[in-house]
Amino acid sequence: MEQYCFGVDIGGTGVKVGLFDASGNLREKWSFSTRKTGDGKDVLRDVADFIKTRTDEKKLAKEQILGIGVGLPGPVNENGEVLELANLGLAQFNIIDELSGMTGLTVKAGNDANVAALGEQWKGSGKGFKSMVFITLGTGVGGGIIINGKILAGSVGAAGEIGHITVQPDEDRACGCGKHGCLEQYASATGIVRIAKDLLKNGGKNTALSDSEDISAKLVFDLAKRGDELALEVVDKACGYLGYALAQVAQVVDPEAFVIGGGVSQAGEILIERVKKHYEPFVMKSLKNRVFLLASLGNDAGIYGCARLILASNY
Amino acid sequence: MEQYCFGVDIGGTGVKVGLFDASGNLREKWSFSTRKTGDGKDVLRDVADFIKTRTDEKKLAKEQILGIGVGLPGPVNENGEVLELANLGLAQFNIIDELSGMTGLTVKAGNDANVAALGEQWKGSGKGFKSMVFITLGTGVGGGIIINGKILAGSVGAAGEIGHITVQPDEDRACGCGKHGCLEQYASATGIVRIAKDLLKNGGKNTALSDSEDISAKLVFDLAKRGDELALEVVDKACGYLGYALAQVAQVVDPEAFVIGGGVSQAGEILIERVKKHYEPFVMKSLKNRVFLLASLGNDAGIYGCARLILASNY
Repeated sequence: MEQYCFGVDIGGTGVKVGLFDASGNLREKWSFSTRKTGDGKDVLRDVADFIKTRTDEKKLAKEQILGIGVGLPGPVNENGEVLELANLGLAQFNIIDELSGMTGLTVKAGNDANVAALGEQWKGSGKGFKSMVFITLGTGVGGGIIINGKILAGSVGAAGEIGHITVQPDEDRACGCGKHGCLEQYASATGIVRIAKDLLKNGGKNTALSDSEDISAKLVFDLAKRGDELALEVVDKACGYLGYALAQVAQVVDPEAFVIGGGVSQAGEILIERVKKHYEPFVMKSLKNRVFLLASLGNDAGIYGCARLILASNY
Repeated sequence: MEQYCFGVDIGGTGVKVGLFDASGNLREKWSFSTRKTGDGKDVLRDVADFIKTRTDEKKLAKEQILGIGVGLPGPVNENGEVLELANLGLAQFNIIDELSGMTGLTVKAGNDANVAALGEQWKGSGKGFKSMVFITLGTGVGGGIIINGKILAGSVGAAGEIGHITVQPDEDRACGCGKHGCLEQYASATGIVRIAKDLLKNGGKNTALSDSEDISAKLVFDLAKRGDELALEVVDKACGYLGYALAQVAQVVDPEAFVIGGGVSQAGEILIERVKKHYEPFVMKSLKNRVFLLASLGNDAGIYGCARLILASNY
């Protein structure tokens, strides 16, 4: 009797669900919108119902389901304790208790960036590395740390919050988190656009950026690749802060490799090159020349990592 | 038949040895000088001979010795692999293989600051905390990170190198490690003296420090406690960098507590207060209000941690 597990990546706007066999192959995947009503608990009810419908449809017996791995958009510790999920309007609950109560199945949980890190380490670019740091550059900057093949969750689930490392204590603008000078303010897609606009105001440089109404991180990288002076300066500034932050992370956890994902990582090798360049001067000799890679699982990293939470004991 | 283990803390100048019973009580301790001859291997031979002499003297059978835990003054990973021990003149060897070859006993090893961290978490101020960051402020600044009661060693043993986190990228003077602006350049005993001398040059402030020929970190803290304006400025600067660095560490590993040891920590509560004050603005909401404590085992932290490496499986 073949066994399966579900990987469920709950985001602020959508829920991704994957059905995996016990060998870790993704057999089928789905997605649906995140409901934010019911003090945020409706989305958990939706997940439970969805899994029930799929298992009934596929005539899977309860014994065939090894469990549900869940990723949440906020801090979750190893015991499933959630302090606050502002995105979903949820506060202080235990995701494992809630969802196993609703489904009668084994549940394990992690933060979204952490499960994506685990996915990349298991089946993506991080394969073969026992310890790895994953950074996702999107609207924000997320991070996840894998040590000996396991998520480093932290006491309240806030480990790996690389996007909110302070890289510029003198920044006058506030980050979404309330602090000033977080990495996310410079290395996210929105941060890159902001750097570009700031530098454009100063003027002076020869650039194609000023012609553009809608500056995007993609445009900045595209122009940088074509040698645009100002675009190169923007890329260097963003990668400078990222390299600096990753050096701090290296001094703390000494990982074998860094894997960079998220929308901005579609810029490709130029990103890896520049980040590496800015990483080197800020680490001790024994931490130099680490491996830097682009992520390879895209949006599926999360569901892979969720499945891994359940299947880890099987390997 | 009672069982024992040895904790051996090898430093650049001296070796400390502790004999522990299986319940973790320190029964007896000794120390001797570190020999740096024989490409650094003589000190390992000395350790092996010393342990042989003590076990013979005490008429202990081999089966009564659970093993030897060793701390080394440089990076060591979980497998005992050492890249370089500049202090001892040793390069690229495996401490576990070497010392178990010499003694026929089980050997486990860690970096000196890491084993001290483990000691404090096991029997010192960190007792009761599953995850903890230990910082030792002496001639240099060392660090060790404990996650779920275990040392976070890192892939080459360089995790927890908090003293070499870059806190001031614009620093023109080089750190001993070759980088610029490492925490160690400001928060070590020598760093504190340097800050004091720099601020004295600027003049202006009312201070008793200028009267003093021999400025020491102790003097700076003593005067700060009596309200000396310039001394308070020095303390604030050193603690500012330390608070900032520990905030970066918190964003990466989310520990329950911070324990501060080493000579400078004898300054007492003023140090804890100031570091805490400077930590808060640089961490996310969920990382605020962490526990900050002074270390309590002094120079014995290392041998306790070494013993714990051997006894951990017994608990």
